[in-house]
Amino acid sequence: MKHQSILDRAIQANHERSFFAQYPEHPKAYGDEGMQTGLANVQALYNNFYKGLLQENMDNSVGEEVSPYTQEPLNVRYPTANTAVFIKQAQQAFSSWKKLSKEQRADILIECLEQIKTKFYEIAYATMHTTGQSFMMSFQASGPHSNDRALEAIAAGYEALNAYSDEVLWEKPMGKFNLKLKKEFHAVPRGIGLVIGCSTFPVWNTLPGAFADLMTGNTVIIKPHPKAVLPIAIVVEEMQKVMKANGVDIHTIQLACDDSSKLITKELCEHPAIKLIDYTGGSTFGNYVESLQGKTVFTEKAGVNSVILDSVNKIDEVLGNLAFSVSLYSGQMCTAPQNFFIPAKVNTAEGELSFEEIAEKFKASVAGIANNPKMGPGTLGAIQNELTAARVKNIASLGKQVLLESTAIANEEFPSARTCSPTILVCDASDTNVFEQELFGPIVLLIKTTDTNQAVSLAKDMCEKHGAITCAVYSTDTTKAEWIKEEMESVFAPVSLNLTGFIWVNQHAAFSDFHVTGGNPAGNATFTNSSFVDRRFVWVGHREVIA
Amino acid sequence: MKHQSILDRAIQANHERSFFAQYPEHPKAYGDEGMQTGLANVQALYNNFYKGLLQENMDNSVGEEVSPYTQEPLNVRYPTANTAVFIKQAQQAFSSWKKLSKEQRADILIECLEQIKTKFYEIAYATMHTTGQSFMMSFQASGPHSNDRALEAIAAGYEALNAYSDEVLWEKPMGKFNLKLKKEFHAVPRGIGLVIGCSTFPVWNTLPGAFADLMTGNTVIIKPHPKAVLPIAIVVEEMQKVMKANGVDIHTIQLACDDSSKLITKELCEHPAIKLIDYTGGSTFGNYVESLQGKTVFTEKAGVNSVILDSVNKIDEVLGNLAFSVSLYSGQMCTAPQNFFIPAKVNTAEGELSFEEIAEKFKASVAGIANNPKMGPGTLGAIQNELTAARVKNIASLGKQVLLESTAIANEEFPSARTCSPTILVCDASDTNVFEQELFGPIVLLIKTTDTNQAVSLAKDMCEKHGAITCAVYSTDTTKAEWIKEEMESVFAPVSLNLTGFIWVNQHAAFSDFHVTGGNPAGNATFTNSSFVDRRFVWVGHREVIA
Repeated sequence: MKHQSILDRAIQANHERSFFAQYPEHPKAYGDEGMQTGLANVQALYNNFYKGLLQENMDNSVGEEVSPYTQEPLNVRYPTANTAVFIKQAQQAFSSWKKLSKEQRADILIECLEQIKTKFYEIAYATMHTTGQSFMMSFQASGPHSNDRALEAIAAGYEALNAYSDEVLWEKPMGKFNLKLKKEFHAVPRGIGLVIGCSTFPVWNTLPGAFADLMTGNTVIIKPHPKAVLPIAIVVEEMQKVMKANGVDIHTIQLACDDSSKLITKELCEHPAIKLIDYTGGSTFGNYVESLQGKTVFTEKAGVNSVILDSVNKIDEVLGNLAFSVSLYSGQMCTAPQNFFIPAKVNTAEGELSFEEIAEKFKASVAGIANNPKMGPGTLGAIQNELTAARVKNIASLGKQVLLESTAIANEEFPSARTCSPTILVCDASDTNVFEQELFGPIVLLIKTTDTNQAVSLAKDMCEKHGAITCAVYSTDTTKAEWIKEEMESVFAPVSLNLTGFIWVNQHAAFSDFHVTGGNPAGNATFTNSSFVDRRFVWVGHREVIA
Repeated sequence: MKHQSILDRAIQANHERSFFAQYPEHPKAYGDEGMQTGLANVQALYNNFYKGLLQENMDNSVGEEVSPYTQEPLNVRYPTANTAVFIKQAQQAFSSWKKLSKEQRADILIECLEQIKTKFYEIAYATMHTTGQSFMMSFQASGPHSNDRALEAIAAGYEALNAYSDEVLWEKPMGKFNLKLKKEFHAVPRGIGLVIGCSTFPVWNTLPGAFADLMTGNTVIIKPHPKAVLPIAIVVEEMQKVMKANGVDIHTIQLACDDSSKLITKELCEHPAIKLIDYTGGSTFGNYVESLQGKTVFTEKAGVNSVILDSVNKIDEVLGNLAFSVSLYSGQMCTAPQNFFIPAKVNTAEGELSFEEIAEKFKASVAGIANNPKMGPGTLGAIQNELTAARVKNIASLGKQVLLESTAIANEEFPSARTCSPTILVCDASDTNVFEQELFGPIVLLIKTTDTNQAVSLAKDMCEKHGAITCAVYSTDTTKAEWIKEEMESVFAPVSLNLTGFIWVNQHAAFSDFHVTGGNPAGNATFTNSSFVDRRFVWVGHREVIA
């Protein structure tokens, strides 16, 4: 194997779960010169038909992306075709892809990642101008972080394929003689996998499922969100080039674009040849995907993430950390906190503070980031979706006290950017009708509770009913912290305890943090544990009498 | 750990998949004296209230078992209660069982197996007089084979729980300093598991799911088939005794009996506290169980198993082996072959034989077993269910040529036994309406095909549409045999090639043969691969800043 050492390190890291990154996250590691070329290359794609994909028999084109930074259409047209064309080509490719050894597949897939690496700058700008992420987040999330998540899926998949002997002599003592059978154990891929992308993380949320499918011998059709195609198109183009260079059917991976006015997602989902579905997006469609019979389905849906403030040392550090968490990409991360449960009185190193005092401090901290011309634009980025901006603007309609109103973020580089600073609402513990819903975007609810017990009880209840991907807890009381972890894990929410400084609850690192537990309504799967890969193929054991 | 060495050997065997049996299958290994005591002990249970279970708050009793050997009611009454009682007690037990370490749980569960071992004779007689299995099959299937399957689930579960570091220091280089987080990874059990038993293998098909649930920290409610309670009642009694002796809540495992006229299965399935369901039985109910949202479901349903006769060496050995396979427990094994695809001409070492010649030879072989007074009763056993007997008797209504009619099997020990020898029908390849259904029981269809290609095509089609658990193939042509394996594994059916002598397609040994692939409609799960255990719990990763 050409890439044996990368694979070995990744497998080890997957078990140890200490820090490991095959792809360093800072752009500097990839050469500063790529920045200008990357931008120019992406700009050259605008107002053009996207020619890079190698997939054949495309007889139509679609394209409706709008940059959240300029609010102008990108005018990129992507080749597409009828569902039947994609399926037929994926089936054809399956007949040869499944026959490659796991070592061959791992090598080709790692080569894909190495090739994608050469386009990190292009992918970054494409991500920025479809999702509204800042340049730095675009680079990291769609580049090295996505590649590491993909490598994690390759490593987990490769290991799952190695779980049992390929062949064994089974010898059963029968008294006077031994009965002998040769047994072979084959990991047989299920068929075609469909990966349905989302508009906010079109690469990061797509690669784990796609690489898990491919590693375990399935072919893949990626159905991107029609408003966030460009970054994943660049990725698929590079993968198809690697497939071609290795003599592999390029249709092993295809991009199936569609138009908002005529989505093909359900048609693909319900096609009998589609055996695997990976989905990231809203809960309504996610629940539909989960209800499909005869499919193996992996979902990440909506959830309501909680903050539980019990007791803290340095309150300003805590609130600064949380203010950054809700500001990062304007709260459009599935890991961003929404519901802040704060008791009437909170113990801090500076003495007891009231709910109101903490709310005021937090308001100042959030406003401080938004109004800081150096920090604001790069932290908050832009708003991907007009509906998210509208939700923020109409927040008063929820009938709760608006402690901090949303404003536009001055962005010198992109004066037309669609921006909203976080808005903060104040609720009571009884306002479950307000805080039991995911209010996607830069919306924070400060919920006044009588004590930590009530906070935990409400956070648990929200998680069990509506799902949660993260839970940030602050407590200086070790016993209480342990109890909160136990309570939250009983509804399958991971706790991030006492985070301050340069680490935020939003961050889920490959090879260490499981992303989504799969145990509550926020999703049924996890990046990347064994069940994320071992359900994508089937063990079949043949046996034969040996004379 | 007290049972570390057993566990270690089992884990190793699970990966190697060569022959391993912690529990030898022959009764002699357990002392012949147990035979008489066992029989007496079981007879003492008849016409009585079953007192052995330790579970509390039972306010009702049910019981409707009839011995297929005497066709007389056993008159055993089992304690039971409302669904709510079982759920409440299982939840209560969950709060403490989940807190035990995986080593503690493995030790207690292996101790359960060691305790069950002391009742193998009782379990054998109880199995015989509920399922109709012969004494020997009853002993092996419900005794040592079940225990080995349970140990396999313990081993696989234990290993899955050890997949990742319990705790790790995550240290991310940040240039001037390292960011440090302590991360903990907890395997959190899902909650309460329901295991729904079947009437033909009430222990063998029940223990894998039950032990997989328990090993991974869930509590279990077993809902037995109302006609086959006694063997599993003895098992649960012994397990509850072990729980009690270890200071564990006895309601960690409960037996929830019901009456055919008022089944509680759906009520249990749909209860929100039931998170896991293991099911063995018919496809209609199995499909219902699979359709339930928010449950993690493992099924074994009906299927149609094929035999493909391409070319053989010693035709008599081949047909003798197959005749035994269809006679064993009168075809009431889910692994028994049903559809024999035989070309018009078959090459054998004795020269070319026609379909008709082979059919005649097979008929003689099957009749030879049934009419052999020494071999017949012990091989065929009795018919569990009146409906199965009726299906065999009315076989002519299918409108196909009856090559061999079913007769009663003379059984000296049990003259009133409900018995049917296998019936053989002859079909054409075009009779898919006849052979596309599972004809459960001693019913064999010989299907005349033009050639092996047609046979493979039909067997594949049946498997894809209706499921299959086994496929017996005979071919002396290595290339063709490889091709057939490839074809059949593409629909997730395992091939047993050229079996003759003392090994039959029906047999699936623990630690080596995967039982059911999970890839076709015969079921969605496998005894026991990683996905049979790793979906029963959820990885939750907590993290905390280290100063």
